[in-house]
Amino acid sequence: MSNTGSGPASPDDTFVELAGRVADAAGAIIMKYFRAPMDVGAKPDQSPVTVADGEAESAMRGLIGEAFPDHGIIGEEMDNCHEDAEFVWVLDPIDGTQSFVTGKPLFGILIALLRQGRPVLGVIDMPALGERWIGRQGQPTTFNGNPVQVRACGDLAQAWLYATSPQMFEDADFPAFERLRKQARRTVYGAECMAYGLLANGTVDLVCEGTMKLYDYAAVVPIVKGAGGFITDWRGQALGMNGDGRVLAAGDHALHAAALEVLTGD
Amino acid sequence: MSNTGSGPASPDDTFVELAGRVADAAGAIIMKYFRAPMDVGAKPDQSPVTVADGEAESAMRGLIGEAFPDHGIIGEEMDNCHEDAEFVWVLDPIDGTQSFVTGKPLFGILIALLRQGRPVLGVIDMPALGERWIGRQGQPTTFNGNPVQVRACGDLAQAWLYATSPQMFEDADFPAFERLRKQARRTVYGAECMAYGLLANGTVDLVCEGTMKLYDYAAVVPIVKGAGGFITDWRGQALGMNGDGRVLAAGDHALHAAALEVLTGD
Repeated sequence: MSNTGSGPASPDDTFVELAGRVADAAGAIIMKYFRAPMDVGAKPDQSPVTVADGEAESAMRGLIGEAFPDHGIIGEEMDNCHEDAEFVWVLDPIDGTQSFVTGKPLFGILIALLRQGRPVLGVIDMPALGERWIGRQGQPTTFNGNPVQVRACGDLAQAWLYATSPQMFEDADFPAFERLRKQARRTVYGAECMAYGLLANGTVDLVCEGTMKLYDYAAVVPIVKGAGGFITDWRGQALGMNGDGRVLAAGDHALHAAALEVLTGD
Repeated sequence: MSNTGSGPASPDDTFVELAGRVADAAGAIIMKYFRAPMDVGAKPDQSPVTVADGEAESAMRGLIGEAFPDHGIIGEEMDNCHEDAEFVWVLDPIDGTQSFVTGKPLFGILIALLRQGRPVLGVIDMPALGERWIGRQGQPTTFNGNPVQVRACGDLAQAWLYATSPQMFEDADFPAFERLRKQARRTVYGAECMAYGLLANGTVDLVCEGTMKLYDYAAVVPIVKGAGGFITDWRGQALGMNGDGRVLAAGDHALHAAALEVLTGD
C-alpha cells in the first residue's frame, strides 16, 4: 500500500519506527521518577509526576521535531504547534498520573499520529510493565510485536467491562454508565489506557469512559480498530479532533451496538 | 527473639523461607495460565483461572504439609484442615481473579501464617510483576528484600485512598465508603491486594475495603503493621479469624482514627 492517498493507507514505517523511539525515550525518563520519594504536601509544580511529565514531553517533542519539523504536535503539557498540519502527533507522556503517583505500575505513554485529523497510528506503552501495543491503519495491531485480535462476545450479559473509575463520568453520564455496568457481566476498574490494549488482546470485551481528552483517546483508536474492534463516542460517531470526551470501545460489533443503546436509553 | 512465647516474637526464619518457596511454586503455576486463551462462555469449573487456582493451592498445601504436617491450612479453594492448630496457614492462590481473567497483571498470591488465630507472617506476591512484600511480626516489612515504611499523612483531605472497587461494599457500607471517598484527596481503584503493599511502601495513605474473607486480609496485616501502619476492621478491632470483612488500613495513626470516625458517623 502507498502512503500518498487519504484513504486507508497504512502510515509509513518511518513514522512507526519514530513512534517506537519516542516511546523508548519517554519511558526511560518516566521510570527514573516512578516510586521516587514524594513529599505528600509538595506543590503540584514540584512533584515528581510533574517533572517527569514535562521532561518526557520535551524529549518526545525533540525527537519528532528533529525527524519531521513540519509535523504538528499536540501534547498534554505544552502548547500546541502546527496543529493544522497534515500530520499531527498527539502525546500524553503519563496516562494514569494517579496510578503513577501512588506507585501502581498501571500508567502508560500514549502516542498518536493524526492524518488530516484522523488517528492513523497509535502506541500504548506501559513502561513499568515492558508492554507495548502498536496500531496502524490498515495493518494488524501488535502487542510486544505479535499480532492480536479482539474476541467475539455479542452478549452484554457475558461481557467484561472496564473503566478507569466510576468518578470519571460527569452529570448524566454517570447514570448511563451505571445502566451499562449493571447489565454487563462484571466491571473492573483501574487499568487506565491498558484497558484498550486488553480489549485488543481479546481478554476484555468493552471499555466505557468519560471526560477523555484527545491525548487520552487518539492513540487507542488505531489499536482497537487494527485488532478488529470498534471504537466511537457514545453517539456512535468516529473519534477525531473534536470528540466530546465519551468513549465506547468493544471487541464485537453487536456488543458495541447493544452498549450504545444502553448508554443512549432513558 | 525467641519463638516460644505468645507475645510479639518474630516467626521463625524457617517459616519465612517456606512462605517464599510456597509463593514461588504458586507463581510458576499461575503464570502458565495467565493470558492463556479462554472461551468466554466456558463453565466456571473449566476456566483457566479455576484450573490455575486449584493447581496452585494443591502445590502450596503440598509444600506446607511436607514441612509442617501438624500445621493447619485454610485455603480459598479446598477444605480447611487442622484449623484449630497453633499454627495455621491461610492461602489465596489468586487474589484478584477478575484482573487475572481479563489479562490485567494486578493479581496476587496471598500467604499468611496465623499463630493462635493472629497473623504473624504475611506475603503478598505479584507474580506477573515480580514484586513481593513480606511482613513478619516484630520485624520491618520488606519489598523485594528491602525494608519499607509508611509515610506520615494525618490529614484526610491530603490522603490517597485505594479500594479494589466501589461495588465491593454491601448495603450501608457503600454510603460509608462514599463519605470517606469524598473527604479523601483522591480515590484510586483496581490495585487488589497490592494496595496494601503500596501503603507499606509509603506511596498510598489509606485502603478501605469490604466483603473481605480471612484469606483476603490475613496476609496483609503483618505487612501493614511491619511497615509502621495501622489496620483494623471498621470498628477499630484487630483483624483475626472472625473479621466481619470490613478492612481499614492507614499509614498514619491520626489518619486511621479520622477515617474510622467518618466510616462510623452518618
